[in-house]
Amino acid sequence: MSTVTPVADPENDPRVKAVFDDIRATRRTDFINNMWRYLAFDPDLLEQTWRDVKRIMATPSTIDPLTKEMLYIAVSVANGCGYCVHSHTAAARARGMSGAQHAELMSIVALAARTNHLATALQVPVDPVFDQG
Amino acid sequence: MSTVTPVADPENDPRVKAVFDDIRATRRTDFINNMWRYLAFDPDLLEQTWRDVKRIMATPSTIDPLTKEMLYIAVSVANGCGYCVHSHTAAARARGMSGAQHAELMSIVALAARTNHLATALQVPVDPVFDQG
Amino acid sequence: MSTVTPVADPENDPRVKAVFDDIRATRRTDFINNMWRYLAFDPDLLEQTWRDVKRIMATPSTIDPLTKEMLYIAVSVANGCGYCVHSHTAAARARGMSGAQHAELMSIVALAARTNHLATALQVPVDPVFDQG
Amino acid sequence: MSTVTPVADPENDPRVKAVFDDIRATRRTDFINNMWRYLAFDPDLLEQTWRDVKRIMATPSTIDPLTKEMLYIAVSVANGCGYCVHSHTAAARARGMSGAQHAELMSIVALAARTNHLATALQVPVDPVFDQG
Amino acid sequence: MSTVTPVADPENDPRVKAVFDDIRATRRTDFINNMWRYLAFDPDLLEQTWRDVKRIMATPSTIDPLTKEMLYIAVSVANGCGYCVHSHTAAARARGMSGAQHAELMSIVALAARTNHLATALQVPVDPVFDQG
Amino acid sequence: MSTVTPVADPENDPRVKAVFDDIRATRRTDFINNMWRYLAFDPDLLEQTWRDVKRIMATPSTIDPLTKEMLYIAVSVANGCGYCVHSHTAAARARGMSGAQHAELMSIVALAARTNHLATALQVPVDPVFDQG
Repeated sequence: MSTVTPVADPENDPRVKAVFDDIRATRRTDFINNMWRYLAFDPDLLEQTWRDVKRIMATPSTIDPLTKEMLYIAVSVANGCGYCVHSHTAAARARGMSGAQHAELMSIVALAARTNHLATALQVPVDPVFDQG
Repeated sequence: MSTVTPVADPENDPRVKAVFDDIRATRRTDFINNMWRYLAFDPDLLEQTWRDVKRIMATPSTIDPLTKEMLYIAVSVANGCGYCVHSHTAAARARGMSGAQHAELMSIVALAARTNHLATALQVPVDPVFDQG
Repeated sequence: MSTVTPVADPENDPRVKAVFDDIRATRRTDFINNMWRYLAFDPDLLEQTWRDVKRIMATPSTIDPLTKEMLYIAVSVANGCGYCVHSHTAAARARGMSGAQHAELMSIVALAARTNHLATALQVPVDPVFDQG
Repeated sequence: MSTVTPVADPENDPRVKAVFDDIRATRRTDFINNMWRYLAFDPDLLEQTWRDVKRIMATPSTIDPLTKEMLYIAVSVANGCGYCVHSHTAAARARGMSGAQHAELMSIVALAARTNHLATALQVPVDPVFDQG
Repeated sequence: MSTVTPVADPENDPRVKAVFDDIRATRRTDFINNMWRYLAFDPDLLEQTWRDVKRIMATPSTIDPLTKEMLYIAVSVANGCGYCVHSHTAAARARGMSGAQHAELMSIVALAARTNHLATALQVPVDPVFDQG
Repeated sequence: MSTVTPVADPENDPRVKAVFDDIRATRRTDFINNMWRYLAFDPDLLEQTWRDVKRIMATPSTIDPLTKEMLYIAVSVANGCGYCVHSHTAAARARGMSGAQHAELMSIVALAARTNHLATALQVPVDPVFDQG
């Protein structure tokens, strides 16, 4: 079930092939997951999405790769994206997330959701000391 | 603007005082932020919320304290809780989050939101390899 | 701060006046809250919104009036609508919601948010016995 | 998988039949999609939902039919409604949405989600010039 | 499709068995739904989640059991949790929710979503009279 | 109230100045709204965000400029971003959105939210004919 038809041989398009090749090289795997196969219906959208995923997620930076994946899971759960929860949980495992860390991540996400709803329900005013602006 | 009236002298209630004292001791500060002052309208709700925030956020575990706060921010942004974004950004700063890390956190949250919406819009089917169940 | 300019004398428009009069009669109060004053920028939108709010919320039915308001609060919290949380908490109080019931409502909403996020994070498959379709 | 049992012969109920007939006439097709078949468990809910869908979506107005469907898709993606994304993407295609327009719609929805999350994360204050109220 | 692997014989773990036994005793049924079977991958998470679900949902209080389940459904719909909508609709039916009440619940949830979006779109300012804080 | 401190003289940074100059030239106005002033705390984040906003929103394409802004509003409402609703409503007005179109946009967004919640509450199965994948 999808709203676009995946292209039969997407790598016949040289722009798609270039992106797929870069995904394989960056991730050191032959596996191209469905997100990229479906985005390939529009090479512009595919190129721009991959460019930023690569830059943000696959470039060494001030946040370590496992933490990045756990942050991605946290946002994806709150936004209710089942596909994204699946793909980034797999990515977090591939970067070493243990079962204990996974359970703790679940606890934090669930706790945040709980207090998010409480603060919204109570309409708690922001403490002036928190203001940076 | 709030939906509950904060109690004038909440610490006259010994259960509220016990929670506030524990917040001060756990966080090593005299400051009690509004979330707790407003939750104090119901001591049960206050106790149960603090018990779990303390257990999950203030106990050494498999995820470090700064990462926990960044995960909390990520969920709070996606759930649109302004109070929570403010309070946990302050907490992350207190645990050492640099300006560069803050900016990178913003990039990751924004990227996840972007691909969450793309995957939902395309209704990308989950790759069988991601299934753990 | 609003995205539309409220009309200075909205009841100069007979369609707006008719809706405002019906709000006053239905609610037995002279007070017209901002939601209706701002919707008055478009009489069609005002009429259609009030027609359904009146039919669903102010007509005796199989769900009692206080429960209806608590359900409205629950949805409004989850959708992050501050205005709606404020107006329907006031309405629930006017229909007799006690402080204890308010606190319990908060607990239920927060618990639901917590398990909503857990079920999404785990991608728990629906038990076949739950299927009615 | 559904939470209600679709009625076996829904058109035995004359109110359901009248709505289904109007859907067929309005859309010039014999096809009744599942949304209406499942809503038929309650004729009131079916009638009121169809009345407003027809009035807003199928009546000539200041926004053209294709734009209406693209707006519907945009909201449905952000609200995470898979059924709605599917049905309104099909409706947009039926009203002439090209592949390029579909890809561009995806880009806009994803960009909005990205800056929505950035503005919420930064808690950017609204510029006074934007205020109409 | 799930992000965790359910344990083959979860009740070999005495902590899991104790929770499952308490679920059976509290609900007076042998049926353990998938939510608990999947949470069993981490006994801490299982225990803490069940402890609060039992305390809030299965203890006599100021909100009756059917209303609690309808509130749970309302939040779960707004948060887009399909699993939770299924499980709590089944629970509400088991507590006596009629078809008419189900349809009315749908109407209220849909109406709230509609005015939530209107109030957010118009950015309606909160009436000072609603402020309790 | 913000979570970052806007830079006092942001255009002292040549990268920030270049972006602000391009915003002014692209939009033919001297006004730089707060979103960009706050994003300026991190020139990378500022540059990348503006680059894509300009490319997607300010480049002639298959969707006209007013429709783009209305789509942006629709997503921003559903995601509950008050800042974004304000800024893009102003942008839509600048591109010619009439009061009648604004009211109709509100109607469509509210209708979509309503049926989004109904389809999620009923867990309506996707009609096979909608599947493109």
